[in-house]
Amino acid sequence: VSVTFPRGFQAAGITAGLKPSGRPDLALLVADQPCEAAGLFTTNAYPAAPVKLSRSRLAAGGKVKGVLVNSGDANAGRGTTGDRDALSTTAAAARALGVEPDQMLACSTGVIGGAFPAGKIEAALPELLGALSPDGGASFAESICTTDTVVKLAQAEVGDIRLGACAKGAAMVEPHLALATMLVFFATDAPTGSNDLGELARLALKPAFEELTIDGCKSTNDTVLLFASGAADAAPVQASSPRFDEMVDAARAMADSLTHQMAADAEGGTKVLLVDVRGGGSDAEAQIVAKAIANSVLVKTAIFGGDPNPGRFVQALGSSGVAFDPAGATIRLGDVVVFSGGAVSPGYDEGGAAHAVVSAPEITVSVDLGPGLGRARAVGCDLSYEYVRINAEYTT
Amino acid sequence: VSVTFPRGFQAAGITAGLKPSGRPDLALLVADQPCEAAGLFTTNAYPAAPVKLSRSRLAAGGKVKGVLVNSGDANAGRGTTGDRDALSTTAAAARALGVEPDQMLACSTGVIGGAFPAGKIEAALPELLGALSPDGGASFAESICTTDTVVKLAQAEVGDIRLGACAKGAAMVEPHLALATMLVFFATDAPTGSNDLGELARLALKPAFEELTIDGCKSTNDTVLLFASGAADAAPVQASSPRFDEMVDAARAMADSLTHQMAADAEGGTKVLLVDVRGGGSDAEAQIVAKAIANSVLVKTAIFGGDPNPGRFVQALGSSGVAFDPAGATIRLGDVVVFSGGAVSPGYDEGGAAHAVVSAPEITVSVDLGPGLGRARAVGCDLSYEYVRINAEYTT
Repeated sequence: VSVTFPRGFQAAGITAGLKPSGRPDLALLVADQPCEAAGLFTTNAYPAAPVKLSRSRLAAGGKVKGVLVNSGDANAGRGTTGDRDALSTTAAAARALGVEPDQMLACSTGVIGGAFPAGKIEAALPELLGALSPDGGASFAESICTTDTVVKLAQAEVGDIRLGACAKGAAMVEPHLALATMLVFFATDAPTGSNDLGELARLALKPAFEELTIDGCKSTNDTVLLFASGAADAAPVQASSPRFDEMVDAARAMADSLTHQMAADAEGGTKVLLVDVRGGGSDAEAQIVAKAIANSVLVKTAIFGGDPNPGRFVQALGSSGVAFDPAGATIRLGDVVVFSGGAVSPGYDEGGAAHAVVSAPEITVSVDLGPGLGRARAVGCDLSYEYVRINAEYTT
Repeated sequence: VSVTFPRGFQAAGITAGLKPSGRPDLALLVADQPCEAAGLFTTNAYPAAPVKLSRSRLAAGGKVKGVLVNSGDANAGRGTTGDRDALSTTAAAARALGVEPDQMLACSTGVIGGAFPAGKIEAALPELLGALSPDGGASFAESICTTDTVVKLAQAEVGDIRLGACAKGAAMVEPHLALATMLVFFATDAPTGSNDLGELARLALKPAFEELTIDGCKSTNDTVLLFASGAADAAPVQASSPRFDEMVDAARAMADSLTHQMAADAEGGTKVLLVDVRGGGSDAEAQIVAKAIANSVLVKTAIFGGDPNPGRFVQALGSSGVAFDPAGATIRLGDVVVFSGGAVSPGYDEGGAAHAVVSAPEITVSVDLGPGLGRARAVGCDLSYEYVRINAEYTT
């Protein structure tokens, strides 16, 4: 199931020997017939070679056969050599699948500036194609993982239309990596065009994934790809139709589920931190505040330690740079008001109420900035010894 | 010496029982005669009560007798109660010193939202005043410390003019605190006006302290205060005079020394990280890049682990949001080029050259963005287990 829950897709995941660990590392998702596709990509000034390739192929229009994913090397920070390798591996996959080279997209995750194993990938293509199956979603989801400890899956039905998705991240890919790559694959059998699919991505997926912040680090490889096979027995879905709105709602719920799954599986993470902000001049301002709190290392270490001290949240709120009336803001841990009227609430932890909130595996911090229609959420996690260990102890 | 190196000042530091540890916690710096003064303050939306009080008294003009500092409680996040306590304690000090209440400034550092010990402070004033001495700079510097493991001192002479300074931070104040407060006190015996002193602060001190970033968290209490007694046997110094420029240079060198001392003593820090950026459209843009690298938790944990992997620096550089030509940027660790032309340099660690750089106690990362006259530095540190322990293990 998962990404192959919708009709018209096949997927596979195998071990091609790209990872020293010997775990699955090469994956392929294809539509039975070239299909509609859309994507969202990292804004890092150093996008990896597969990001540039996929982005430019989608921008050129035309139908897409599928995507080749490897989880052994990021193919990033390699200049034109990286571009050549992204071209050659997707061309080899296209040849094997009998489609045009520009109908194949690519994603990679792994070491930045490493030696991309193009030869091993090309040599493994026959085995990979041989493993393709309409039930291949599970092994696909497993093969895109790096330090992930569980696969991340979501699916939904909207009338006769099916949606399926999987994701990896946003834990860092390997200890010696510089990035916390997120890869997300959405498939649907809705009969819809690539522009409508792009609109679905902007309305349902972009806002959800922008809420996620594991360590505030924007990867060179972050990618969200969407595919629509049109294989459902359903009327065409356009951005103006009610069915489209239902798909947006379903896709948003799937994306929210995936971001929670990723935050819960974050490297070294022991708790999920949700920061809800209301008020402020705009959603964008509310999001700056939410991220300032969710990314504060002082907040993250306090959450790890189960310390409800309101000062940490006050400090982070006050340092966001967003204009608001400080005396009109309220901070809640769960339902407990810990700060309002410019002062920490006396007795906020009476009966251990605030301690109980920050000791739970999922913690919601709510900030009301006072007047203003802004609204935003950040989905983050705590900062633990294990995070430091994973990212410090490995030495290249 | 230190802050009392210039003529015309006395200082003292005592133990008033504000800290559970029993270490010195109350300090006083006064000019023999009410003197010229200026200040720089945190931009946090929740400035502590003493920040508001000092800022408004300096803005009102007039001469200043000195500053009362306590290192037991931040007097922050307490609403109007905090304002009343800042007023009453400075009024009591002014009465004891025989000056007007608005001639006294205040600084605090410690718990946010705690119970400010105004009574203990007022009761300790006779002892504090009794300890005042022209040699009191050392005990003053000691009494403003919190988790600092060493005092931070600097001094200089410009002709017949003396400058002295001390600082605390930017380690967090106590494990259960939400802030990494920096307090800095500059004194000079130069005959100069408060406007010229303010200009000195903007030209020499502000840029230096803005380079410092221990954990990216902006305290509610950060304060830099400057005092000029005029007691030197020297001609008046105005912002237009060559002597003023010499003072600016000397003050900048002192401030640079203090930021290094603070970074080296950062909570849990084991290494100082200097990030130098050249190029980009402006100094402000270069500073965004420098801070993006110095504040990246992936860079900070890599530095802690002694890992020179260029990917971490590439990722941070690419995610700063500043516009530049990615192919034209170069990253160096010490003198070793690790990234240029959009690619990690092959063999960058030949002979262990890059490893040697990141294994040193002070590490310089240089980024050349290509064309552009921008220039900036960030002074930071690594992120260790000890940082997580200090900030997680304490539970209120």
